[in-house]
Amino acid sequence: MKILVINAGSSSIKYQLFEMPAEKVVAKGLLEKIGEETSKLTCSCNGKEFKTEVKAKDHAAGILLILDSLASGETAVIKNVSEITAVGHRVVHGGEEFTDSVAINDKVIASIEKFADLAPLHNPPNLTGIRAAQKSLPDVLQVACFDTAFHTTIPKVAYIYALPYDIYEKFRVRRYGFHGTSHKYVAQRAAALMGKKFDQANLITCHLGNGCSMTAVRAGKSIDTSMGLTPLEGLVMGTRSGDFDPAILFYLAEKGYTVEALNNMCNKQSGLLGISGVSNDMRNMRKQADAGNVRAKLAFDIFCYRIKKYIGAYTAVLGGLDAIVFTGGIGENAPDVRQQCCGDLAQIGVNIDPAANAKTNRIEGLITSADSRVKVYVIPTNEELAIAQDTFALAK
Amino acid sequence: MKILVINAGSSSIKYQLFEMPAEKVVAKGLLEKIGEETSKLTCSCNGKEFKTEVKAKDHAAGILLILDSLASGETAVIKNVSEITAVGHRVVHGGEEFTDSVAINDKVIASIEKFADLAPLHNPPNLTGIRAAQKSLPDVLQVACFDTAFHTTIPKVAYIYALPYDIYEKFRVRRYGFHGTSHKYVAQRAAALMGKKFDQANLITCHLGNGCSMTAVRAGKSIDTSMGLTPLEGLVMGTRSGDFDPAILFYLAEKGYTVEALNNMCNKQSGLLGISGVSNDMRNMRKQADAGNVRAKLAFDIFCYRIKKYIGAYTAVLGGLDAIVFTGGIGENAPDVRQQCCGDLAQIGVNIDPAANAKTNRIEGLITSADSRVKVYVIPTNEELAIAQDTFALAK
Repeated sequence: MKILVINAGSSSIKYQLFEMPAEKVVAKGLLEKIGEETSKLTCSCNGKEFKTEVKAKDHAAGILLILDSLASGETAVIKNVSEITAVGHRVVHGGEEFTDSVAINDKVIASIEKFADLAPLHNPPNLTGIRAAQKSLPDVLQVACFDTAFHTTIPKVAYIYALPYDIYEKFRVRRYGFHGTSHKYVAQRAAALMGKKFDQANLITCHLGNGCSMTAVRAGKSIDTSMGLTPLEGLVMGTRSGDFDPAILFYLAEKGYTVEALNNMCNKQSGLLGISGVSNDMRNMRKQADAGNVRAKLAFDIFCYRIKKYIGAYTAVLGGLDAIVFTGGIGENAPDVRQQCCGDLAQIGVNIDPAANAKTNRIEGLITSADSRVKVYVIPTNEELAIAQDTFALAK
Repeated sequence: MKILVINAGSSSIKYQLFEMPAEKVVAKGLLEKIGEETSKLTCSCNGKEFKTEVKAKDHAAGILLILDSLASGETAVIKNVSEITAVGHRVVHGGEEFTDSVAINDKVIASIEKFADLAPLHNPPNLTGIRAAQKSLPDVLQVACFDTAFHTTIPKVAYIYALPYDIYEKFRVRRYGFHGTSHKYVAQRAAALMGKKFDQANLITCHLGNGCSMTAVRAGKSIDTSMGLTPLEGLVMGTRSGDFDPAILFYLAEKGYTVEALNNMCNKQSGLLGISGVSNDMRNMRKQADAGNVRAKLAFDIFCYRIKKYIGAYTAVLGGLDAIVFTGGIGENAPDVRQQCCGDLAQIGVNIDPAANAKTNRIEGLITSADSRVKVYVIPTNEELAIAQDTFALAK
């Protein structure tokens, strides 16, 4: 069975075509610059990479181009688009409503529209992708997989902020969390690697990529996560600040900053970029630090320090911890970050094996020594596969 | 040697007169409603409490009234104000400049004035108190003891926020922390109770009162604390929110909230009061919760949950933890809070003794069982004594 997975952004569509249940990627690609003069389609299939300039005036045209590339020419991997049994869509915000992936109908679409208020940058393009796919493949099952779904098990004690309660009742301001598909995927893999049932595994998962978030998983369920109402809260990220004293915003407003300027500052000019002044990229940060850039070193150190604080915090609230998992572009590829986040954690039972840590990159592996009470794993994430699995389960 | 300790608020002056080095409180009291039609002077001395209506048009007149009550009438404890050798003043904000208590001169006053920008509600009345005391006791040593001083050892990795670095360089926006006098006092007492040198003690101190903050103390030095640029950050408090996703402010601004309304909301209408909707008082919270008020129970639970997260976070960054200390009105008096904050922390080595916990209130004591790797103490704070000690040391 062929499952197409779609992740639609404001001017791009990422896709992967899976053969299920074999979990084999038949083709994958990226259509960029939708709506511009010329769009760019990159496609990997049949053992090659193809790059072409195309014309995609909107997402609907973009989906047609992608389907066309899957079924014709040298990029063809299927004979006819009718071979596609179902389409799985990444949707960022499912509010408090969607606790799992669902088959899309009019009611689901209305809800995704409603939650656009909470994710104005993401839900509208996600929805555009869904509508475009419905138009091109009207008789095919469409499934929505939500970044927030895995976190709907978080208890009230962790999701209610200590603000006036009517802010929650009126505006649904609460902790939602994101990256749920990734956290769940790597948590399930970690349980499997430990030979534990998922509903018996206590884990801390660290998704460190462009965005960074951590999740406390108790008995297979998310019980707390570092991102909140929005992806700003929590860890230091490329250009996002993560946690800070919210009263700083009042202080700077008095100095003449507008709310818009502050919003832009916290989301686009902070994080690694803000501290270092040179880059939002972790590889670059380490290079600059090694070359003697003191603020790049500081950015690196703060990035790791804040992860360490969350490891401690989640260890305390979990009550018992089996393993910590690193994933995402940084988590999978930066042994120095993992070492610094997990160093001097003997008190909570973590003992990194430096040799195993150094060589476990972009692959699954255990990086703690045999005597480490808490295991630490590197597990490459695969959100597309997770979406394909959910979609396949609903299609069966 | 007599030392007068003064804590001047916007319309009040709290004071204690100490006999040093005996550390004996000779008299203590509170002058309220300064500047109003009638002011109220409460004074405890000679084994009695005296309440009188007085006229104090400003802080200078207030200090004169206090000195008068110390040296004359049935409240007299000294023959003449000339017996007072030095005056110790509580000052909230010492910026990055004051790492310890100092003798006050014009330069110190200018700095306290400068830091009023960072503590607009506190430094100006503190300064008014200093000036009034200087006027009444012109030849007496005046000492400033700063709430921020103990935290000036916090390293950059913990005090720099992941915001654009020039926000720190231009506006000195960083973590300062508060309650330093209290954290240091109880940390020193804990080290003494453990029979450890202070510079070898690793501690987490929890000051839970009207304001709440926690400090990580490594080798006798503050290395991180939960309050930040302002006292808003960190734990849930009576009416303050503590940590939340700062982007909530952007979201609510878009819904029509002004910056001023948001500031007021986070500082005055949040915390226990905001969640429960009924009270900002922890004793009341527990009563209401026991009577079946679900949101009061939620407020209680969130209060404890957030302390537990900080215990975990600071355990992780300390690298090794000897003891946790509870102090402040709630910390000293609420065994149920301490139990809930420290329950299920076996993984980090905490094992509360319920009987010891239940009976250790308003007194110093150990509340963990003999096998607890990490000790937990209740230690009543005494900021006035700490100020008297610092002032005495400078007066000698």
